Amino acid sequence: MRFTSRTSSDGVLEQLFTLDEIPGVLWTPDDAPGTRPLILMGHGGGQHKKAPAILARARHFVTEGGFAVAAIDVPNHGERPRSEKFDRIAAELRARMDAGEDPAPLVATMQSLAAGQVVPEWQAVLTALQRLDHVGRGPVGYWGVSLGCGLGVPFVAAEPRVGAAVLGLQGSPALAETATRITVPVQFLVQWDDERVPRAHSLALFEAFASAEKTMHANPGKHGDLPRFEMDDALRFFIRQLG
Amino acid sequence: MRFTSRTSSDGVLEQLFTLDEIPGVLWTPDDAPGTRPLILMGHGGGQHKKAPAILARARHFVTEGGFAVAAIDVPNHGERPRSEKFDRIAAELRARMDAGEDPAPLVATMQSLAAGQVVPEWQAVLTALQRLDHVGRGPVGYWGVSLGCGLGVPFVAAEPRVGAAVLGLQGSPALAETATRITVPVQFLVQWDDERVPRAHSLALFEAFASAEKTMHANPGKHGDLPRFEMDDALRFFIRQLG
Repeated sequence: MRFTSRTSSDGVLEQLFTLDEIPGVLWTPDDAPGTRPLILMGHGGGQHKKAPAILARARHFVTEGGFAVAAIDVPNHGERPRSEKFDRIAAELRARMDAGEDPAPLVATMQSLAAGQVVPEWQAVLTALQRLDHVGRGPVGYWGVSLGCGLGVPFVAAEPRVGAAVLGLQGSPALAETATRITVPVQFLVQWDDERVPRAHSLALFEAFASAEKTMHANPGKHGDLPRFEMDDALRFFIRQLG
Repeated sequence: MRFTSRTSSDGVLEQLFTLDEIPGVLWTPDDAPGTRPLILMGHGGGQHKKAPAILARARHFVTEGGFAVAAIDVPNHGERPRSEKFDRIAAELRARMDAGEDPAPLVATMQSLAAGQVVPEWQAVLTALQRLDHVGRGPVGYWGVSLGCGLGVPFVAAEPRVGAAVLGLQGSPALAETATRITVPVQFLVQWDDERVPRAHSLALFEAFASAEKTMHANPGKHGDLPRFEMDDALRFFIRQLG
């Protein structure tokens, strides 16, 4: 893990890093050495490790909860090169959505392709982060919605160090099958009028988690309309589970 | 409004009262005069104004949020006389449940009978409470699940002074029709494996609220298994809406 920049503002230290080919970012409380709970954040489709929705939550989790937070660019996003195959699928996806067709099957295909690569990447990043003095081997959580859930479900299912997860805005029969291997506490976000995820798929994914403790938070509105108060609800969930 | 007892413990003042034939209880922070937000709490079927589930939440709302909280015995519950008609319906309800039949239609009938009486009672109690120096005319919330939701939906729909409500563990087509007149923020609780309320009825009731801001919190488990953390989530909802 190689750190390439280090900036500090309003009590939050931000460090950009690369691990092999993976670009990432770590946020921690300023001047606070020692082990602390770590939250890994998965960005949405077409977004990147420092997208506004990630950055706002990361700073909130650091300043209000004392967490360490990390994000990476997943393959074909942010600073990473785009593959021809990805560009082809992305173009087809846009065409289908413009034509009013159901994008869900193609989204599921894309996410399943990406998951095979991203799960071992997250595992390597987690191992490297836990070797740092200001992160350490504390409890670990995962936050990710939309693509961040599509990739997060396979990651949380595969990685025993993750002890709690906020997931949502996603659902597919393939993802639901993987979710049956998840047993840690889950907070699951549903947009009741999601134009990209059929409501029945969302409910089926919530149903599928094998976790004894799982809560679904459903709010009116479309895919991008997640209410601001869910940021605070996620923080309190992580404090309860990992704090 | 006539006060019949006054006790204080751990920072909470508890005053029993009667208004006409209605027995009630008011909890407020000890030694804290002045106007404050008020939460009215509706108890469950077969319970009463000081049932453990009510008492625990009332004290939590007072000590952690600085709210005033009030509860009353609804007709045929607690200290109030039981009518023959109520006893007959209650016996039939128990018989149906013992026989494994669907109790939902009879529950809906009972609640609709009781609502005609309880809505004007809550309105009179609210008016009297708001005349007290240590309550005043601040923002008002309503909390009630199960029977407390069956009676709460008609009350919140009828009473413009209520500005936010936590409801749940209930659903019926008749209740959903009334819910279309509710426009204030609602936090709605669903037990995913509720043996008394069909899941489709719960989802339809959530769907029916006309509120621009409404959140459904669904958790695994049966009717009586509401997780403890939902008490804190309700407090934070009221602080956000009324605080």
